[in-house]
Amino acid sequence: LSYTRYDIKKPDTALRARLQHKIDFKTKPLGSLGRLEDLALKIGEIQQTLTPQLKKPTLVIYAGDHGLTKEGVSPYPQEVTLQMVKNFIHGGAAVNVFSKHSGLDLVIVDAGVAGDLSDCADRVLIRKIAAGTKNMLTSQAMTLDQLHKAMTEGALIVDMLYDKGVNTVGLGEMGIGNSSSAALLTSYLCGVSIDEAVERGAGCNDETLRHKHAILKKVREFHGEMHDPLQVLAACGGFELAMSVGHILRACEKKMVVLIDGYIMSSAALVAAKICPEALSYMIFCHHSASSGYSVITRHLGVTPVIDLGMRLGEGSGVAVALPIIQAAIAFLNEMASFEDAGVSEASQ
Amino acid sequence: LSYTRYDIKKPDTALRARLQHKIDFKTKPLGSLGRLEDLALKIGEIQQTLTPQLKKPTLVIYAGDHGLTKEGVSPYPQEVTLQMVKNFIHGGAAVNVFSKHSGLDLVIVDAGVAGDLSDCADRVLIRKIAAGTKNMLTSQAMTLDQLHKAMTEGALIVDMLYDKGVNTVGLGEMGIGNSSSAALLTSYLCGVSIDEAVERGAGCNDETLRHKHAILKKVREFHGEMHDPLQVLAACGGFELAMSVGHILRACEKKMVVLIDGYIMSSAALVAAKICPEALSYMIFCHHSASSGYSVITRHLGVTPVIDLGMRLGEGSGVAVALPIIQAAIAFLNEMASFEDAGVSEASQ
Repeated sequence: LSYTRYDIKKPDTALRARLQHKIDFKTKPLGSLGRLEDLALKIGEIQQTLTPQLKKPTLVIYAGDHGLTKEGVSPYPQEVTLQMVKNFIHGGAAVNVFSKHSGLDLVIVDAGVAGDLSDCADRVLIRKIAAGTKNMLTSQAMTLDQLHKAMTEGALIVDMLYDKGVNTVGLGEMGIGNSSSAALLTSYLCGVSIDEAVERGAGCNDETLRHKHAILKKVREFHGEMHDPLQVLAACGGFELAMSVGHILRACEKKMVVLIDGYIMSSAALVAAKICPEALSYMIFCHHSASSGYSVITRHLGVTPVIDLGMRLGEGSGVAVALPIIQAAIAFLNEMASFEDAGVSEASQ
Repeated sequence: LSYTRYDIKKPDTALRARLQHKIDFKTKPLGSLGRLEDLALKIGEIQQTLTPQLKKPTLVIYAGDHGLTKEGVSPYPQEVTLQMVKNFIHGGAAVNVFSKHSGLDLVIVDAGVAGDLSDCADRVLIRKIAAGTKNMLTSQAMTLDQLHKAMTEGALIVDMLYDKGVNTVGLGEMGIGNSSSAALLTSYLCGVSIDEAVERGAGCNDETLRHKHAILKKVREFHGEMHDPLQVLAACGGFELAMSVGHILRACEKKMVVLIDGYIMSSAALVAAKICPEALSYMIFCHHSASSGYSVITRHLGVTPVIDLGMRLGEGSGVAVALPIIQAAIAFLNEMASFEDAGVSEASQ
């Protein structure tokens, strides 16, 4: 597996002074739009323009199943992955509702659901690597061949969107058991214990949580020490996560704005950043997850999410709810008057 | 001045269990939409329905000038109030841009600008109490008659909007020097020192800030002890603040959803809550202000703002940026499928 095929460069900083000047001469006190100013600067730099635009923003939801679920790490049965994909198709999930209101197109991808979606092939991109990963308590979750294939499929989906004129992609996911994968990726790649990385996961009570801790520690013992991000991803990831990593890296290579959801997708972003640190320049972390593992990742990467509404749902819901805030950042940069335009006096200092 | 003319009752709680049930049986883990669930419940209760709607949400921006500005508490000249009102009229301010994108109607009110807006009377409601307040370092900011008139005008604006079918009002403001009024209201009504309540204010450097502290302490000495919220408002308020207090109280009386902006408008909300504590049931605090005084108010009132983007602009910008989040809360309640609708299995616990 080669890392070098991702040709990701940080955005040129030559435009930064002009962007900052444009921001500072809007009719408002210096810095008074807070995080919106940071976002406007970042997106202007990514797109290398003083008038950035999010074109056809599209949220891709990668779904996959996890062999580890047979160890009882989630209170939900594995079938819920398939059921929720069908809920996405019928428009009834949170991410559908939020995406519709935010003007975000949805693309649903079967990355490895343990159930047949072929009768929905007009509504779901079937890119199934296998019907769920292997149980990582006793095996690699996936082979290196499967990992490579999944990452390539994610990259190809970006290429397809790019060719349609999309310049902004969000990432969401569905996969019962995938908070266990996220915890292991966090533990390995941020160098923290399972206890620090573990997330309660959807609907998990205290007893299930204790059991999850015990199982994940055994998984870590089984696989031993690993440092290579792709090795960790193959051992403990999911197909939806591997496809997301390929998606993120390709989108950064193409200088797209990449919107990262909550804990699960941040663990994919972590893998991508370990492969190419420059990729972080293109990512916006949308929603702070209540999970302790999420904070481990954001501290490790030195990033700050846009909003914190105490949500812990995944699906891409954090991307969809945050999008209007990110649009507001672009809107003020493009549409507000400057002091000069408006004939407003500046501060006397 | 009578407090009893505001007939504000807390919303009936009879619907709460049914609203909570509707929220809990959406296709998502219990509680996983965090603050959005609180907002959906609150708005459902205010409107006494399982299918709430924000009808014609309207942001009213009250503008007024402050006699205290002649003491140099702000680095901006007083004329900026008038200039910014004209900027609002021409659509160039941050609040215009954000309101347009959030689908929020704007109403601009001259509550007491020290400048002539009569040539803009088709775009601004002229409700001028006087051309700015008196200097509160040496006088009451306004007479009790002026206070009463301002509060009545605010209430009448609510009546007019209500009659047009508006059920959701936001409050914004413009007034060079009004962070000094906010600090004094906070200091008096939350029982904290000027040092705890003072806000840097728009574009204020360290030297201006030290001067502002000194002046505000003198203002507090001049007026001595006060506890009655209306007395404090007359002594240290602004016409835009007094009109806002009347607006808030009437809107709560009419069971409207009341969206509160940042620090300045939260100080008006504080006065309203001191007059009628039940009013808080109708208010949503939209944006956390970076000012220390803001946190004093929110702690004192026991409220949590929806978002924190480090903004400190006022105008109603916090309302406009937060509105899509509040709309998302209503959208999930109305539009998401339930477990039963979608055939999704619930957690096993």
